[in-house]
Amino acid sequence: MPPIAPRIAEMNAGGSDGWEVFYRARAMAASGLPVTELTIGEHDIRTDPAILHAMHASAMGGHTGYAAVPGTPELRAAIAERVQARTGIATGPDNVLVTPGAQAALFAAHMLACPPGAAALYVDPCYTTYPGTIRAASARAVPVATRPEAGFLPDADALEAAAAQTGARSLLVNTPNNPTGAVYPRATLMGIARVARACDLWLISDEVYEGQVWQGTHLSPRALPGMSERTLVIGSMSKGHAMTGARLGWIVGPEAAVAHLIDLATVTTYGVPGFIQDAALFALREGPAHEAQVAAPFARRRRIAEAVLRDAPGLRLLPAEGAMYLMLDIRATGLSGAAFAQGLLETQRIAVMPGESFGRAAAGHVRVAMTVPDAAFEDALRRLASFAADRSTRAARA
Amino acid sequence: MPPIAPRIAEMNAGGSDGWEVFYRARAMAASGLPVTELTIGEHDIRTDPAILHAMHASAMGGHTGYAAVPGTPELRAAIAERVQARTGIATGPDNVLVTPGAQAALFAAHMLACPPGAAALYVDPCYTTYPGTIRAASARAVPVATRPEAGFLPDADALEAAAAQTGARSLLVNTPNNPTGAVYPRATLMGIARVARACDLWLISDEVYEGQVWQGTHLSPRALPGMSERTLVIGSMSKGHAMTGARLGWIVGPEAAVAHLIDLATVTTYGVPGFIQDAALFALREGPAHEAQVAAPFARRRRIAEAVLRDAPGLRLLPAEGAMYLMLDIRATGLSGAAFAQGLLETQRIAVMPGESFGRAAAGHVRVAMTVPDAAFEDALRRLASFAADRSTRAARA
Ligand SMILES: Cc1ncc(COP(=O)(O)O)c(C=O)c1O
Ligand SMILES: Cc1ncc(COP(=O)(O)O)c(C=O)c1O
Repeated sequence: MPPIAPRIAEMNAGGSDGWEVFYRARAMAASGLPVTELTIGEHDIRTDPAILHAMHASAMGGHTGYAAVPGTPELRAAIAERVQARTGIATGPDNVLVTPGAQAALFAAHMLACPPGAAALYVDPCYTTYPGTIRAASARAVPVATRPEAGFLPDADALEAAAAQTGARSLLVNTPNNPTGAVYPRATLMGIARVARACDLWLISDEVYEGQVWQGTHLSPRALPGMSERTLVIGSMSKGHAMTGARLGWIVGPEAAVAHLIDLATVTTYGVPGFIQDAALFALREGPAHEAQVAAPFARRRRIAEAVLRDAPGLRLLPAEGAMYLMLDIRATGLSGAAFAQGLLETQRIAVMPGESFGRAAAGHVRVAMTVPDAAFEDALRRLASFAADRSTRAARA
Repeated sequence: MPPIAPRIAEMNAGGSDGWEVFYRARAMAASGLPVTELTIGEHDIRTDPAILHAMHASAMGGHTGYAAVPGTPELRAAIAERVQARTGIATGPDNVLVTPGAQAALFAAHMLACPPGAAALYVDPCYTTYPGTIRAASARAVPVATRPEAGFLPDADALEAAAAQTGARSLLVNTPNNPTGAVYPRATLMGIARVARACDLWLISDEVYEGQVWQGTHLSPRALPGMSERTLVIGSMSKGHAMTGARLGWIVGPEAAVAHLIDLATVTTYGVPGFIQDAALFALREGPAHEAQVAAPFARRRRIAEAVLRDAPGLRLLPAEGAMYLMLDIRATGLSGAAFAQGLLETQRIAVMPGESFGRAAAGHVRVAMTVPDAAFEDALRRLASFAADRSTRAARA
């Protein structure tokens, strides 16, 4: 076999990616063991049949040929309208590229922003694909650590120092945040914007959880002064509309950047199925009520968690302001996130993600996805809490 | 706006890409003028409703969440079986990655084969996206010219010289060929394989037209001695199953390479919609009869073209052995491919692609897509022939 390009061969360099627990849980479930999976960001509901009927109608109506590579005019317009209504920033169809999911959008944004070898900053902890996405784009993934004590909010001075030191071309942020549940407040975003302007960075703003905010308000940094010309907003139907499998996302950015992103899309994906775009258009036109309905179970489960985990010994629930996850600080158990997750799986048949999967900054934490029905969720949390209590007692004794 | 990475900013460097005629034709059609479009590789039929019903059943059955990133086990197995049956080369699911279309597969293959800056060879003329695909992968696109007099077949010595001179990491070939209609004979493929082995190249073999062969036999170079370990075969449902808009393709290659390609897919696309994969599985299970039905109109129209264009003054129909296009040598008219196509559009309202769009080697040619109903096709060819006759008479007089 001829050699494999290092950007791919070394993409997952840096050892274990913390997905062992996930795969072990899947294997246990496959072998018939009852496992409560609180791992990945997949709703316990399916896509609304009304959306699927709209998709079928579009396909049967003949929208089965190559669709326009940038996206259909109608969907681009609908996304632009949505973004403009939410941010007040002028946004037209030419500011929008439709992509096969936010993941493809994240990759395209880094391809645009970073020449090979350039540094690309991201906030640690982060969604697990971030470092690999940057490496696949032949750029250098540079984490900027945050601290649990600061609510995992990035510090502007730390970002600026990292940008200056590495000559970074881009900065990737995510609010509402996976895995931490943080919703960045205005002051944090102002700091981020200041650094982006000062260091002439592309700001890549992953807002796929924009509709899932339990506390505070979602603010898009593209709306801050001087930022619309340097911000690439990443959006998706996956989380807000329970359409993960449909693979439909978007990038909103300056028209000139979008024009180049269309060239890139022509050679990387050649567009998104027209019938899926029509389904997404239908879903967007359903309006906020449908999104609220998709988000409601997570809001309910977050309140359950706050009640169950209040004063639980051995763990601390971090403020869960948005997105479909909870972050638990389990350092009092004396265990790493990975050891905690492994122990919990083996003894309780409950699968959660080790914080380490999301970066070093989340060591000693686990992430709990709120993706099983309320009763099962509550039961799992109670067992998780007693596991933590037991381990922290042992840790205190030792 | 911060700078845009050169690989994207300069992707379409090298000036006009010859799509003016295409866009002008679309604009004319949109303004109500009757235009016969013989430009892009889009069938005049839609996707078979039976396939769309299978897709809807899958979606309604709940296959709307994230699908396995490498592809569903069933679809990977079906593709592997198909490839093994056609080539006799052992092929299993782990040799297969499902991608959102062949275009995504072409990009992924070059991302795998070429580190940034490495040379990637391709045969000129070629499908229009090839050079941009290579450039987007941060590699250097190196055309190896072929001659109409040699049926546009690549010459092994020319390939070897180019590989040696540039230190190329990959060679991209396409049979049945778009735009030339050539089906590479065994001797040509043996020469290609020899060069790939001698220069330790990845051979990227685009076989999306494998089911559309009118003369000769399709041979996959992966089946040649020592080639399965260095060949990445690109396939698609687009052309053979009239599923262009569904965006479903694949790569077949060595297991170790596919494992890396799965890592890449995780950060570039995160898989292909499960309901589309189920639709593709249904379509593949329909067997060869369905593919033959999709191909039949092109076979018929090719015979029409041979009858109409035989002895037509001013043009020469190149041997049309496969794929859904005809290549016409119009050098006797004294016009460039672009001037011929422009004149034909303005005077006859018939849109064809200038040969130049596919590379320098196709200058003085035009490509005719056989993608309108037989009667309209025959009529368009007659008018095209009289346009060519008229121009060649003028050229002879001048
Ligand atoms: C922060 C974040 N960004 C992007 C994605 C991917 O979204 P999509 O399904 O649209 O590719 C996820 C999925 O979990 C995510 O958590
Ligand atoms: C030679 C060749 N390869 C690849 C493609 C793209 O196929 P897909 O629709 O699967 O991306 C085409 C489409 O015209 C083509 O002609």
